[in-house]
Parts: sequence; structure tokens; C-alpha cells
Amino acid sequence: MSSPRRADAQRNLGALLEAAKIVLAESGVDAPAKEITDRAGVGVGTLYRHFPQRSDLVIAVLEHEIDACAAAGAQLSAAQPPAAALAMWVRRYTELVATKAGLASALQAGDAAHQRLRVYFYERMSPVLDALIEAAARAGEIRPGVRAVDILHAVALLCQPVPGEEPGYGRRLVDVFLAGLRP
Amino acid sequence: MSSPRRADAQRNLGALLEAAKIVLAESGVDAPAKEITDRAGVGVGTLYRHFPQRSDLVIAVLEHEIDACAAAGAQLSAAQPPAAALAMWVRRYTELVATKAGLASALQAGDAAHQRLRVYFYERMSPVLDALIEAAARAGEIRPGVRAVDILHAVALLCQPVPGEEPGYGRRLVDVFLAGLRP
Repeated sequence: MSSPRRADAQRNLGALLEAAKIVLAESGVDAPAKEITDRAGVGVGTLYRHFPQRSDLVIAVLEHEIDACAAAGAQLSAAQPPAAALAMWVRRYTELVATKAGLASALQAGDAAHQRLRVYFYERMSPVLDALIEAAARAGEIRPGVRAVDILHAVALLCQPVPGEEPGYGRRLVDVFLAGLRP
Repeated sequence: MSSPRRADAQRNLGALLEAAKIVLAESGVDAPAKEITDRAGVGVGTLYRHFPQRSDLVIAVLEHEIDACAAAGAQLSAAQPPAAALAMWVRRYTELVATKAGLASALQAGDAAHQRLRVYFYERMSPVLDALIEAAARAGEIRPGVRAVDILHAVALLCQPVPGEEPGYGRRLVDVFLAGLRP
């Protein structure tokens, strides 16, 4: 494959993922393929070549979101004091959990793909969050003894839907939890 | 019924509930009736007269625990500064949730009995916790804007079992959340 072609393919893939992210959020996991490809400006064949099954597309969208969230860690810690960087990253992670949990649960739990995604999630998030925690602890800005996995679990638990509460409710609970990290 | 007989019946009921609490925790919700009545020192007939079905017994044990937890609110606020009383009560409530969730889930969810218990739980806990929150807020010892239902939900969510973590894990997360209530 020549280089301009490869650049084209890369561009198509990026456009597909971006379009799929929006369409799946708006129209659900079973949204028509054409809605996605129209938005991405590619043919339906391109979609099926990259993602033969809908679950392949869902996984790619989620991995793409996980990657973006993980990448935000380094950006935030370069730009903010340690505790602020930690808090801002946790809020970004909370958005991911709150908005993408439905998409992840569309994959069969217990499924190999679901399991792989889970592993990918922890492998990408844990070191990023560990680095943020370590910097904040070194600066004396958070209580000692908090592990990345504690925060990842707490946010996932607090973002579970509660009957009768508005959708943003989990974020408020996460804010209290975040305040509890102060020394 | 004469008064000494009524006192006897009351004593038997108390002994049954205390015995059932221990036996159901140790041997599970389907523990043999005889294990419970032996421990309570009453006949099996007494058990079935008070609680024809196992679900009646489970509900009575849970209501008894809920009552005891609710009663602890006034005791703690008489004995402790407001924020300490609040924190101690939430820890006691956390114990209840962490140790009795299995028992509650033995009742069929969606069942009328389960639904009644849920209502009973919120009706007993909410005013107790509201009073504790209000006292702590008035003393300037917690952040404003926290509602009883927020804490009840947060604890219930944080105490859900997390695969690979020890059973006391939820209590650690609740402690961070509690610390987040500071102003």
C-alpha cells in the first residue's frame, strides 16, 4: 500500500470512530450502519472492512475513548498542580464511565471481547492514575494510602444509576469522594 | 392474654429475632428452623406461630436491625460532637448495609415484601440521618448541600462487592467519602 493510501485509510478510520462515537451515543448501539458512514463521509464497505461485526466497532470506540482519557493524564499533570490535575483527571474519567457504561454493557458480559476490554481498561488507566496519585501524595496534597484501583472502583460504583435521581447524580457523589482525598 | 403471658411472648420474640440474626448470618438464609429455636430456647411451634414463612422471619430480622441503627442516631448525637456523631452513625449504617445486604437480597426483588422493606428502610433512616446532617451543618462541620439520601445511596453503592477485593473494602471507600463531607 502506498503512503497516500495509508494516510487515507488512517483518516477514514479516525472519521469512522468519531462518527460511531456520536451516532452510537445518540441512536443506540444498534444504530443503522448508514447513519455512521454518512456522518463519517465513507462508504458502508469501509465500515465493514474495518469492523465486520457491530461488537468490533463498539470495542474500537471504547478503546479510542479509553486512550483519549489515558492521554489526558500527562497533559493535565504538565498543566496543573498535582491535586488539581488528579481531580480534573478523575472528573474526566467519571464522564467516560457515566456516558460509556451503557455502550460497554451492550457487549455480552462474560464474553471474551468484554473481558479483553476490561483488561485493556485497567492496563491503560491504572498507570496514568498511579502517576497522578503519586505526584499529589509527594506534594502532600492528598491522604496517603489511596490506590489507583480504589478510585477506579469508587467512581464506577458511584456512577451506577440510582432510581429516581437525575443522570448527573453520580458525578455529585464522585465530587464528595474526591474531596475526601484531601489530607 | 394475661400480662405475664404477654411478657413471655415478648421475651420469646426478642430471643427469636436475636437468634435468627446470628444463625442466618452464620448458616445462611435457609438455615434449619431448629438451629434458630435451639439457640433462642423456644419450641419450633413458637417460631412458626410468629413467622409462618422464612421471608417473614428475614423481614423481621432486617426491620429489627434497621430499628436498632435508627435508634443509635439519637444516642450518638447526645454523646458526640455533631460531625463525629454523623461519621459514627454512617459507619454503623455501613456495617448494616455491608453485613445485611445478602439477607435482603434473599427476598425476591420486586416482591411486595421486598418493596415494603425498602420503604420502611428509607422512612426510618432518612429522618435520623437528616437530623445528624442538620446538626453538623449548623455547627459548620460539614459542607452544605448534602442530603440524607445522598449518603444512603453512596454507602449502598460503595458497599457493593468488588471482585478481587476483601469483604471490608467498601468500608474503606466509605471512609474516603465521609472525609469528603468536611467543609
